[in-house]
Amino acid sequence: MPHRHKNLHRLSPARLFKRRRAPPGTAPGTIVVSPDARPPILTVFAYNGERCVEVQPKSVAEIREHLDKYPVTWVNVDGLGDKQVIEDLGKLFRLHPLALEDVVNTHQRPKVDQYEGNLFIVMRMMQRNDVLAEEQVSIFVGKNFVLTFQENLPGDSFGPVRQRLRTGGPLTGKGADYLAYRLIDAILDSFFPLLEQYGELLETLEEAVLARADVDTLLRVHAIRHDLLALRRAIWPARDAINSLLRDPNALIQSETRLFLRDAYDHTIQLMDLLETFRELGSDLRDLHLTSTSNRLSEIMKVLTIISTIFIPLTFIAGVYGMNFDPDASPWNMPELRWDWGYPATLAVMFVIGVSLLFYFRRRGWLGR
Amino acid sequence: MPHRHKNLHRLSPARLFKRRRAPPGTAPGTIVVSPDARPPILTVFAYNGERCVEVQPKSVAEIREHLDKYPVTWVNVDGLGDKQVIEDLGKLFRLHPLALEDVVNTHQRPKVDQYEGNLFIVMRMMQRNDVLAEEQVSIFVGKNFVLTFQENLPGDSFGPVRQRLRTGGPLTGKGADYLAYRLIDAILDSFFPLLEQYGELLETLEEAVLARADVDTLLRVHAIRHDLLALRRAIWPARDAINSLLRDPNALIQSETRLFLRDAYDHTIQLMDLLETFRELGSDLRDLHLTSTSNRLSEIMKVLTIISTIFIPLTFIAGVYGMNFDPDASPWNMPELRWDWGYPATLAVMFVIGVSLLFYFRRRGWLGR
Amino acid sequence: MPHRHKNLHRLSPARLFKRRRAPPGTAPGTIVVSPDARPPILTVFAYNGERCVEVQPKSVAEIREHLDKYPVTWVNVDGLGDKQVIEDLGKLFRLHPLALEDVVNTHQRPKVDQYEGNLFIVMRMMQRNDVLAEEQVSIFVGKNFVLTFQENLPGDSFGPVRQRLRTGGPLTGKGADYLAYRLIDAILDSFFPLLEQYGELLETLEEAVLARADVDTLLRVHAIRHDLLALRRAIWPARDAINSLLRDPNALIQSETRLFLRDAYDHTIQLMDLLETFRELGSDLRDLHLTSTSNRLSEIMKVLTIISTIFIPLTFIAGVYGMNFDPDASPWNMPELRWDWGYPATLAVMFVIGVSLLFYFRRRGWLGR
Amino acid sequence: MPHRHKNLHRLSPARLFKRRRAPPGTAPGTIVVSPDARPPILTVFAYNGERCVEVQPKSVAEIREHLDKYPVTWVNVDGLGDKQVIEDLGKLFRLHPLALEDVVNTHQRPKVDQYEGNLFIVMRMMQRNDVLAEEQVSIFVGKNFVLTFQENLPGDSFGPVRQRLRTGGPLTGKGADYLAYRLIDAILDSFFPLLEQYGELLETLEEAVLARADVDTLLRVHAIRHDLLALRRAIWPARDAINSLLRDPNALIQSETRLFLRDAYDHTIQLMDLLETFRELGSDLRDLHLTSTSNRLSEIMKVLTIISTIFIPLTFIAGVYGMNFDPDASPWNMPELRWDWGYPATLAVMFVIGVSLLFYFRRRGWLGR
Amino acid sequence: MPHRHKNLHRLSPARLFKRRRAPPGTAPGTIVVSPDARPPILTVFAYNGERCVEVQPKSVAEIREHLDKYPVTWVNVDGLGDKQVIEDLGKLFRLHPLALEDVVNTHQRPKVDQYEGNLFIVMRMMQRNDVLAEEQVSIFVGKNFVLTFQENLPGDSFGPVRQRLRTGGPLTGKGADYLAYRLIDAILDSFFPLLEQYGELLETLEEAVLARADVDTLLRVHAIRHDLLALRRAIWPARDAINSLLRDPNALIQSETRLFLRDAYDHTIQLMDLLETFRELGSDLRDLHLTSTSNRLSEIMKVLTIISTIFIPLTFIAGVYGMNFDPDASPWNMPELRWDWGYPATLAVMFVIGVSLLFYFRRRGWLGR
Repeated sequence: MPHRHKNLHRLSPARLFKRRRAPPGTAPGTIVVSPDARPPILTVFAYNGERCVEVQPKSVAEIREHLDKYPVTWVNVDGLGDKQVIEDLGKLFRLHPLALEDVVNTHQRPKVDQYEGNLFIVMRMMQRNDVLAEEQVSIFVGKNFVLTFQENLPGDSFGPVRQRLRTGGPLTGKGADYLAYRLIDAILDSFFPLLEQYGELLETLEEAVLARADVDTLLRVHAIRHDLLALRRAIWPARDAINSLLRDPNALIQSETRLFLRDAYDHTIQLMDLLETFRELGSDLRDLHLTSTSNRLSEIMKVLTIISTIFIPLTFIAGVYGMNFDPDASPWNMPELRWDWGYPATLAVMFVIGVSLLFYFRRRGWLGR
Repeated sequence: MPHRHKNLHRLSPARLFKRRRAPPGTAPGTIVVSPDARPPILTVFAYNGERCVEVQPKSVAEIREHLDKYPVTWVNVDGLGDKQVIEDLGKLFRLHPLALEDVVNTHQRPKVDQYEGNLFIVMRMMQRNDVLAEEQVSIFVGKNFVLTFQENLPGDSFGPVRQRLRTGGPLTGKGADYLAYRLIDAILDSFFPLLEQYGELLETLEEAVLARADVDTLLRVHAIRHDLLALRRAIWPARDAINSLLRDPNALIQSETRLFLRDAYDHTIQLMDLLETFRELGSDLRDLHLTSTSNRLSEIMKVLTIISTIFIPLTFIAGVYGMNFDPDASPWNMPELRWDWGYPATLAVMFVIGVSLLFYFRRRGWLGR
Repeated sequence: MPHRHKNLHRLSPARLFKRRRAPPGTAPGTIVVSPDARPPILTVFAYNGERCVEVQPKSVAEIREHLDKYPVTWVNVDGLGDKQVIEDLGKLFRLHPLALEDVVNTHQRPKVDQYEGNLFIVMRMMQRNDVLAEEQVSIFVGKNFVLTFQENLPGDSFGPVRQRLRTGGPLTGKGADYLAYRLIDAILDSFFPLLEQYGELLETLEEAVLARADVDTLLRVHAIRHDLLALRRAIWPARDAINSLLRDPNALIQSETRLFLRDAYDHTIQLMDLLETFRELGSDLRDLHLTSTSNRLSEIMKVLTIISTIFIPLTFIAGVYGMNFDPDASPWNMPELRWDWGYPATLAVMFVIGVSLLFYFRRRGWLGR
Repeated sequence: MPHRHKNLHRLSPARLFKRRRAPPGTAPGTIVVSPDARPPILTVFAYNGERCVEVQPKSVAEIREHLDKYPVTWVNVDGLGDKQVIEDLGKLFRLHPLALEDVVNTHQRPKVDQYEGNLFIVMRMMQRNDVLAEEQVSIFVGKNFVLTFQENLPGDSFGPVRQRLRTGGPLTGKGADYLAYRLIDAILDSFFPLLEQYGELLETLEEAVLARADVDTLLRVHAIRHDLLALRRAIWPARDAINSLLRDPNALIQSETRLFLRDAYDHTIQLMDLLETFRELGSDLRDLHLTSTSNRLSEIMKVLTIISTIFIPLTFIAGVYGMNFDPDASPWNMPELRWDWGYPATLAVMFVIGVSLLFYFRRRGWLGR
Repeated sequence: MPHRHKNLHRLSPARLFKRRRAPPGTAPGTIVVSPDARPPILTVFAYNGERCVEVQPKSVAEIREHLDKYPVTWVNVDGLGDKQVIEDLGKLFRLHPLALEDVVNTHQRPKVDQYEGNLFIVMRMMQRNDVLAEEQVSIFVGKNFVLTFQENLPGDSFGPVRQRLRTGGPLTGKGADYLAYRLIDAILDSFFPLLEQYGELLETLEEAVLARADVDTLLRVHAIRHDLLALRRAIWPARDAINSLLRDPNALIQSETRLFLRDAYDHTIQLMDLLETFRELGSDLRDLHLTSTSNRLSEIMKVLTIISTIFIPLTFIAGVYGMNFDPDASPWNMPELRWDWGYPATLAVMFVIGVSLLFYFRRRGWLGR
């Protein structure tokens, strides 16, 4: 999965809307291309059990011949920047305008919609490279074709599938529904290393929180929790989508493929399971941070209290004998100052007070850490 | 969507009741007009596949001719201040008294009620202009008409639909159920820019919380959370309402329109998804505020502790040698005061104590930020 | 709804049990009258479409003649203090002993039980007059009668229904099931002004919490949360009860009345919606209180820290030059005391230290509010 | 219900396992008697509509004759310490080994299992006498018998049922299923006074928390929350068990008894309702404790801050004029000491500073209460 | 259950992925053996009602003869380090490649998958020996065989089952489905002593938290909560798996065995019940820790405040009379210093101030414990 990281964007709340271009009130089924969308690159894999052809067609029209010749044709569109290409593909494969609108309105949740003659599947693909980035993958499955649309994100998770097609593995002997399953499975599989990264991040952070619970660490905990929330929005609906693929009656999905979809469904369950565990660990980290801060404050206060409460009375005594009452004016005025043992006795009293307070603190358990 | 903002009201708990006028015990089906409701302005759009007429009728009676002439007539009532008009409309379109009561009792949750001959749909429309304001939109759908009622809020979300009708788009070739879908979709669409605003607010607030976690910032977090709660009360039941439109058997909704309603349903899911994400971010902000405050307190205490605990013992020593015991009275009385190196030695001792304490603090990790 | 407020009781946890008199182990179906229950006052409204009779019968036997003469008879029993009357009514209307036991065991949750020949409906009626008070209303609905039992609370929510019966409105032309609906709706309606009170209380409290977050305010937040919990225990099961009236097949409820029950069901949904909103606002207030307290503490600590950390080093310097080392004894002993510029220089050093610390604090952002 | 309280045990987490004796890996259906189980005391009530016999049989064999003679025989086994007796009873009543294993493995949750020829019902009985104690009650219901097993706890909730049997009430005219219902209802009924105790405890604690929020009070809140958790584990599954008795088709439960079971089901709902209310109050108490502590800390800090910040600057000034710079050495050295109005002016300055600070604090709202 | 504890690994978030070896994009059904997996040790138990043979076959081929001769053959594979052995077993027992992939991909959640001719059951086995360790157990059940795969963990929970087979108990007379039940039950049974350990840990920790709420104790609470989370991930899906074994129609599970599976299902319910109770106790401990810390801080602050606020004013007074204003220079300059009763009066004033403050503190309730 080669990364090129051109325009990764952090998943901030305001950015959740950045890619939505169609203004409110646009008629349903209208295709409004985002100005910063890449021009599309088309790739076609067409195969039967014996051979597999890979071409980059210059126009949509070129695709038709493959459709006629091969039992399965996979057209991958990387970039959504050309309205004409999308509409031509829509005509070629008889796609519903509402589905095409969802392709360019790239804020869909993972879902499966049944249309006449084809299935429309939306998945989300995620990458992390300092920040978490995501794109929508739209998959149309028909009797003899799979059509996939990707957004701006560099690279994708389909590399291994392409490799298998090129080497002519058993995959080439199966139908379009199995190819669609393999693509979905590839997307799901790419979530595992991503979650692994978050697992490591959480572990690093736990140590950081214990070492020094400052605002910086808290913000990192915060950021991870945000990312896990974004992952959740990609994975949870994916489970429902795959479940509906698996259970809803549909002529396009063969029963053999359903066995594999059950496996993919198990994968989404595992992902959710890990995700929820990580989310709970994330919450725990936040609590740990709070408690750690609170504990540290308590520690600091303890030291302040011990030193203050020991020296404040002593300083008071010293202050008393620093008063300038004139012993000559009256025998009641600080006669201690002239006593033989005045000074040593005062020091002794101070020592006794200090030691008593120390004992008191130890008894209250403030000295043993 | 031109705003005129005459009487926007903040959604405070007490205000949730302000618009309910009918006293408890009023007989069901009674229409009690709120005294501060605007006098209604009627607008009629009547069209067939070829032409579309737009008029502002002076009386309800004028509407009937359009109903007879055109396959679809849309009557929009802006303002609920005239009981007579509402009752006349009720008679003209054969509406149930319970439904009419819900039109003027503008505290309904979004819902769909099936009555004989028509569907009654309630939605809520929201605007934000410093404060969040909302109004109830009541939609009746019959075989050949759509009747909509709006409250006091200036402007509405129906502008684009009107525009399409005027330009005679494909919309004019479809039935009343499709027009109703378009109106509902326009309302849902208007929630997206609203949520976008909250996304930006949340982002601004996150920076504010980190910069200075004062009560003011907390109140802003609080206010956003309130608004999101109000949005939730508008969006969640809207999902259920649209789902029941989509699934419940009903002769008024054609199967072609159901495909579009599925799209509208997807929109409500997206809205809920965003809303819940924002709500979670709002909760996180509150936690961040609390932790930030707590951290700041800890920081402040650290500085106080370090300075206090260093100077308190030193001040005590200075206090001791400020005592006025008379060295002439006895050789035990502060002989240090007359030693040759008394003063420098004392300063040295103070220096050693101060540096030791600094080392102790560094070892406990209190000095490195 | 005239209030007389004789014996309102606060809904404290211990009081939840006060009205249960039957000791554990009493045989099911036994009627045990509470010693502090009021002697019952019976009121009968009997009507057909043309006239309505209102009498206060002296004995249960008097009721029978009305039952024979009128299609609908409503018997209201205010006070549960007479076992004989309750048993007589039970015999007259053929009520099941288990249902009668529930009438006097006034700690039932709202519910609907179907018995042969009649429906048994339990609702809870609430009033607030400084403290929240509640009573159980038991409603039996038969083919030609409605029988209602109320507890000790002065006044009820049935006033408007009585008024309509007296004025002979359309209500008198309908069946017993419709009357039961009207009574239930009257009870539900009376929750709206109650919730309105809590809405205002919450708003007042929000200001109070921000003004001064003391224990008193916290207790008021606490008390409102308790009351909302009690309201919840009355409203949530009422929704289920009305839903079961609405959906369960039952010969006693006519289909026309079901339309009205759907409206009542909508009301319970609105009540729950408001209640949950208020509960969330209550939780927010508690959090706001906590954060407010914490912020205030932080503010106070800041002032203490700033003043302490500025003056502690200065006081130390003053303390040093207050030491009494004898400059005559040795040239090393505090020669500064005799320098020409000793005092001004010391003051200058103090000034510099104080100003530096102020600058340090400003840089850390502790001085800007 | 005579209590003898010999060996009540607190429901601590470790104790939850104390009574499980069968080591992991024991074959299913094996009866392993706990070494500290009491030797069983058998009591037999056998009755028909006319008379009721009560005997304490010496051996299991004696029971058979009652079974033959009477339509209903109730065998109560108090103590599970004799494997032989349990196995004999199993043979006599044809009980399934898995059910018998559950009888001695007294950590079952309340449940209902259907076996051929009998129903196996598990309930939990609880007492509170400073600490909360519980025991498992296993109930077998057959066509003509009820067999109940109790654990070590002294006393039970069946006293009133025994009393009714002895006095030959209507109970003796009904079947075994009705007796089983009465026993279950007796157990449920005994939860009400128990919950009443917790209601009173919660009220007492609320006052305690407000009076002094120390660790001791917190531990009491904590302990109540633990007990409510234990009660929850007894009551929630009891509801499910009774519901399954009520709904699942079963020849042993007559339809008349089902009406009573519906009443028992209502009781479990009430219990759960109270329990959840108490649990919420318990959580509130914990929050109240936390806020109370935090408030108190804030109060204390306020006093410290006010006194410190007033006197610290004043003490500094006093310190300055306590310095021993020699006015004779230079005219710049503390000439104030010899000014005529030096001392009064200094005192005046101190007074002005102190009063200014007090005004400042009042303005910030720190002095009002 | 002899433990050898070679390579137990803590269940840290990063480790949750350690055992997954297959890189993303690997074709479904591929067996990728983990490099640190142990070489497998095969054990065969084959039995009919009369005798039971136990052998350790050298090759998979040796197993076939037992399959032919005995009605039930149990093959246990301890270690997943040899791809060839796993594939041979797959061929011998006609296992589906997807199931075999799940055997070596040892991060499956407990589940039941139905394949043609066999059932595939995944369970998780856990041990605790300072740290919690877990392994996946894969169980295939066919008409005449049970095939189990275990991971690296030393020892297993199957000891008692082996013992029973060797002694030829009634177990040898039953089918493969019953053996599978016994193995599952043995795994579930081993969770009980594990949970018992956590019960004791929680109790120990509660005392620790109350004794000294330091970070160390908090981390131990934290660690237990993590472990309980891991246990939850093993037990919750196990319940669903056993429920699907119990309910789903399947020719391989005989109805007699279903009765026992109901018992196993009850065990998972008990486990979940305990687990959730412990999880709630764990949360309570964390709260208790926080409150305990906060209380301690409050205690410490109280002592600091009392001592500071008493001595600060006194020290100020001493400071005033330590000023060196020259009484000779003016009669206004500290004439008190020469008064006859100056010193005793000052001491008296100090004493009065100190005692007054003490009284003030007592009145505010800060002195009583």
